[in-house]
Formats: sequence, structure tokens, C-alpha cells
Amino acid sequence: MYVNVMENIFLLVLVTLMSAVQNAFFAQKVEKECKTHNAKTAAFERVYCATRNCMDAYPTFIAVMWCAGICLSQAPAAFAGLMYLVARQKYFVGYMGQTSQSTPGYLFGKRILSFLFLMSFVGVVNHLLAHYFATDYKDYIQTITKAASALLLLP
Amino acid sequence: MYVNVMENIFLLVLVTLMSAVQNAFFAQKVEKECKTHNAKTAAFERVYCATRNCMDAYPTFIAVMWCAGICLSQAPAAFAGLMYLVARQKYFVGYMGQTSQSTPGYLFGKRILSFLFLMSFVGVVNHLLAHYFATDYKDYIQTITKAASALLLLP
Amino acid sequence: MYVNVMENIFLLVLVTLMSAVQNAFFAQKVEKECKTHNAKTAAFERVYCATRNCMDAYPTFIAVMWCAGICLSQAPAAFAGLMYLVARQKYFVGYMGQTSQSTPGYLFGKRILSFLFLMSFVGVVNHLLAHYFATDYKDYIQTITKAASALLLLP
Repeated sequence: MYVNVMENIFLLVLVTLMSAVQNAFFAQKVEKECKTHNAKTAAFERVYCATRNCMDAYPTFIAVMWCAGICLSQAPAAFAGLMYLVARQKYFVGYMGQTSQSTPGYLFGKRILSFLFLMSFVGVVNHLLAHYFATDYKDYIQTITKAASALLLLP
Repeated sequence: MYVNVMENIFLLVLVTLMSAVQNAFFAQKVEKECKTHNAKTAAFERVYCATRNCMDAYPTFIAVMWCAGICLSQAPAAFAGLMYLVARQKYFVGYMGQTSQSTPGYLFGKRILSFLFLMSFVGVVNHLLAHYFATDYKDYIQTITKAASALLLLP
Repeated sequence: MYVNVMENIFLLVLVTLMSAVQNAFFAQKVEKECKTHNAKTAAFERVYCATRNCMDAYPTFIAVMWCAGICLSQAPAAFAGLMYLVARQKYFVGYMGQTSQSTPGYLFGKRILSFLFLMSFVGVVNHLLAHYFATDYKDYIQTITKAASALLLLP
């Protein structure tokens, strides 16, 4: 059973590990800013807020990515997860570089999360169809998903 | 293996997806409030604080629900998860509607989380009993759990 | 399949449950402080901040621990998770007892998280080696990991 399970999740594990590294990078930034300036400066506020917004969406991202990967197909889910990490990095850097008047909002990566959400949903619906009506479109859906995941590369 | 796994988790996946939708709804509220009023108003504080309290408990909820669902029985865990989402929605709406003097506290859904916690714990204990003493009460426990989960409907 | 899966995760489930209890303990502290003193006192700020820092790292910890436990070996991962919970408790107590001038920083448990991260990474690399080159060092690695996990006990 062991190899079988690993086969189906190792890409997801890799993306999870990369997200953990990114989290550590964010935390390091906060830690550094915190130690350099004891006072609550605007720069500290900015870094802390950016990290907070990123961490707020993190559990949702992890949950949806794993659901999508397990319910439907591993490779597109891991790829979308990777794109999400890139979007998060961009958001974080953009947030820190902004003047204090204009911050780039609270949300980011909406398209990628929607894609992952849709994948999970289609996976569950397909499972129910296969179970109750014995009609399994899994292969078609996986092909479509792989093609669709390339669209996430569009800016 | 694939169908077998899906069989045991698809309800949990559905509840997880619903919780992701709810998180997105909360985030949308914060985003909207943030854009409408640039200044840090009391309304923004309220929404942000409600979202924060909800998101604080989210990883714990997801972890305990999946443990309960995998260790013991899927249907009652998913049902309890659903009740938790309802309680969270109520808490969020209640928090936003309050006057600033009286907020409904930091915690919510304590009973539901305790139930899920207990389910996981009983599941692990039962596994150990089955492993070391070869006495498997799983069927009895699952029946009791299903009946007990109905008690969560009590206000 | 059921018993087989449980066999490989029940220690991880136990540690997850313990972390949930600890989260509940932290939340209880915040709730109590919040109710006792309606005003935003320094003590409330301290407790709230300690809880926030602990909860910030929580999803990362859970994700990395489960990856390490599933990809490589259950017992050392659960042991490292246990050590992390002890470190977190120490951090929380230390944070609350500090004078407001010196707080113990934003991060904690770096060594333990690195250990879990490394375990996951080695597990995935070993899976790829076993898959493409048919060389499986899993047994050696598990023995080394078990020995290495004892090093986490060093202060």
C-alpha cells in the first residue's frame, strides 16, 4: 500500500514543503524587522500585515489543494499550487514595496483557488456519478484538467 | 485503491469545500469593507476581528474533523462539520450586528469541536484495543456516534 | 484497508489531538483575559499576541508533521511533533511572563520544524530513487531518523 499512496501524493508533498519554506521566509522577515526596530514602525506594520494576509489564506489553500489532488488528479493540482506560491510571493513583495496609501488589497490568487476548488468539486461529483450510475468520465476530466491548468500561466 | 479511498472521504471533502466557500465569503466582506472605507473605521475593525477569530479556529477544526472522519466514521464527522459551519456563520453575523460594547466572545462551536475531538479519541483507542486485545467494538461505536451526532442539532 | 491506514497514522492523530487541546487552552486564556478586563490592557495584548504567534505557525507545523509521518516514518515524526508542543508551551508561558520590554521573538521551534521538513524531503527523494532507480534505502533512513530524533531532546 505504501508505494501506491506515495505515488499519488509526492508532488503535493513537494508543493507543501515549498509552501513551508515560503512561510519560513515570511516569518524570518517579520522576525528581522521586529528585532531591528523595537518601535512599531510603518515598515514593521507593512511586513506584519502582508504576512498576516498570506497566512490567513494558507489553511484554505492547503486544504483545497490536497482535496483537488486526491479527488481528481495530482499533477494539475500541484502545478496550480506552484502558481499560487508564485502569486503569493509577488503579492508579498508588492505589499512591502507599496507606499502606505495604496496597498494591493486583502485577497490574491483568487483564480488559482477557484480552479482548485472546481477540480475538487468535479472530482467528488465524478465519484458520485461513478458510484450511482456507473459512468466514469475520470479519464476525460483529467485530460481536460491538465489542459486547463496551462491557462493559469496567463497573466 | 482509488475508489476505496474516495468512498471514505468524499463527505469530508464536500464539507471542506463548503468551509472554503465560507472563508472566501468572509474574506470578501473584509475586502469590500477595506475598499469602501479607506480609513480604519469601527465597522472595518468589527468585520476584521470577526474574520480573524473565525480563521484562528479554522486549522484546528479542519484537523479534528478529518481525524474524526478517518479514525472513526465519516458521516457523523461530516455532519458535525456542517453544524460547525452553521455555528460559524451565526457567530460571524452576530459579531457584525453587535453594538461595540458587547461582542459575543472569542470562542464558538465548543460543543461541536469537543464532539469531533471525542470521536477521534475513541477511534484511536478502539484501534489500539483491536490491535492489542483483538476486541473490536467499531460497529457499536459507530452506531452510538451516529445517534449522538443528532444531539448536536439541539440549540 | 482500514486497519492498515490506521496503523500508519494513529500516532500522528494522537499528536494532532494533543495540539488541538493546546490550542483550546490558548484560546481559553484569551477568552478569560478578554472577559475579565473589558479594556484593552497590556496583559490582554500579551496573551493575544502569544496566541497569535503560536497559531500563525500552526498550519505549517501540522502540514509538515503529517508529510513527514506519511512519507517517511511515523514514530519519529510524532515524537518531533510532541517536542514541538512542549516548545510551544514553553514559548507561550515565557511570552506571558516577560516584562513588556523583552519578548522572546516571533519564531520558535525552528530546529524541530527543520527536522520534520528534512524528514519529508528525504522521504520524497527516497520515493523517487526507489521509483526510477529501484534502490530503496528506506530501512536505513528510518533507522537513522529514529536515532536522530533523540537529538531533539538536547536543549
